[in-house]
Amino acid sequence: MTERTIGILGGMGPLATAELFRRIVEKTPAKRDQDHPRIIIYNDPKIPDRTAFILGNGEDPRPALIKGAKKLESWGADFIIMPCNTAHFFADDIQRAIGIPLVSMVEATAERIAEMGLRKVGLLATDGTVKGLVYHRPLLRRGIGIAVPDGKDQELVMKAIYDGVKAGKLELGRGLLLEVAERLQPRVDGIIAGCTEVSVALRPGDLKVPLIDPLDVIAEKAVKLALGLEDL
Amino acid sequence: MTERTIGILGGMGPLATAELFRRIVEKTPAKRDQDHPRIIIYNDPKIPDRTAFILGNGEDPRPALIKGAKKLESWGADFIIMPCNTAHFFADDIQRAIGIPLVSMVEATAERIAEMGLRKVGLLATDGTVKGLVYHRPLLRRGIGIAVPDGKDQELVMKAIYDGVKAGKLELGRGLLLEVAERLQPRVDGIIAGCTEVSVALRPGDLKVPLIDPLDVIAEKAVKLALGLEDL
Repeated sequence: MTERTIGILGGMGPLATAELFRRIVEKTPAKRDQDHPRIIIYNDPKIPDRTAFILGNGEDPRPALIKGAKKLESWGADFIIMPCNTAHFFADDIQRAIGIPLVSMVEATAERIAEMGLRKVGLLATDGTVKGLVYHRPLLRRGIGIAVPDGKDQELVMKAIYDGVKAGKLELGRGLLLEVAERLQPRVDGIIAGCTEVSVALRPGDLKVPLIDPLDVIAEKAVKLALGLEDL
Repeated sequence: MTERTIGILGGMGPLATAELFRRIVEKTPAKRDQDHPRIIIYNDPKIPDRTAFILGNGEDPRPALIKGAKKLESWGADFIIMPCNTAHFFADDIQRAIGIPLVSMVEATAERIAEMGLRKVGLLATDGTVKGLVYHRPLLRRGIGIAVPDGKDQELVMKAIYDGVKAGKLELGRGLLLEVAERLQPRVDGIIAGCTEVSVALRPGDLKVPLIDPLDVIAEKAVKLALGLEDL
């Protein structure tokens, strides 16, 4: 099969985008530069905050998301991935505006969780992802239960993401997330690192239950699609 | 001043490109996503091997380099940086083909070494960078001496880069490079990590003399240019 060019609609946030890029490169079976697939990255951190809009107090990010996706399509990407869980709230709007597939990180993650045979998973994510039911729908459709941190703990998760990782204070973010995960894990069979900033801060060995990292799931899928080992 | 969009002509190799991206993000003074500049990355690992061509036994990489640079220009990049030292052998050819500046990592590094007041530096780089005099010219122009590993050691550097880092065996590459650096450092005031694969494998604290890392130099310069803190 012929190779495909990966398009990454990034910048949400930029560190998570760099992390996804690195994971794709590391997961590619390659012995030399030329064995790797082409990747086009549009890192646009100016896209308005997704959570703010979903909660009703921010600018609509859809025009910028659609503009970015159209750019990637016109630049030659064969499919698009998006290293931002919350932005997947708008996945259908983006997909309708372009002629190439937007490969959903959220659907791929729900599929992986089903394959793992987990019955109930916890979610560490932004208020936008939680209240927008970004993971609830694909998980419930597969008969998988979902647990979210209670109100106070969810505030800590938001603090970890915005005042921690996005503000360049990785250790602050990591500490808060570990604290919340500690309280969430007795109730579930696994925990989703449901925000790319959580992916950057937590590691698989940190928890007593499996940590499902959507950035890893989509990196692996993107490599297979780019190398033509899986159909689009 | 208005912000500028960074264009990265990458893929040479892909891991070094991901590393440059991460360093740019980390060096950006930002409290939230929207404080970061836009970055467009064309990661094209299909560009023919630069060293092979310079040594007279490989395909000419210039058409692919120029094609990539033109793409980035047409996509809206305001300037281009290139995380491959060897590719800077072709910098003039690329610059002549585009209407935006190609900001040279090699010139920026020579400038930094002059500012540091070093009189003689060692170079860990590909045969292409060494024999193509990529660093010799800008350093000698500034009155700075340059020392390269002897024949056997230069073979180890090439092995570290190609069989080590580019082939995904980071620790093999790192071990070989430390061995060569050990023998090179008594002769010099500093050592240039003159191949992006060397940047990925070595860390500043590894050597007794300062390690000058062109990836860091160009990341810092790109941030200043992108935020409008420096003129193009």
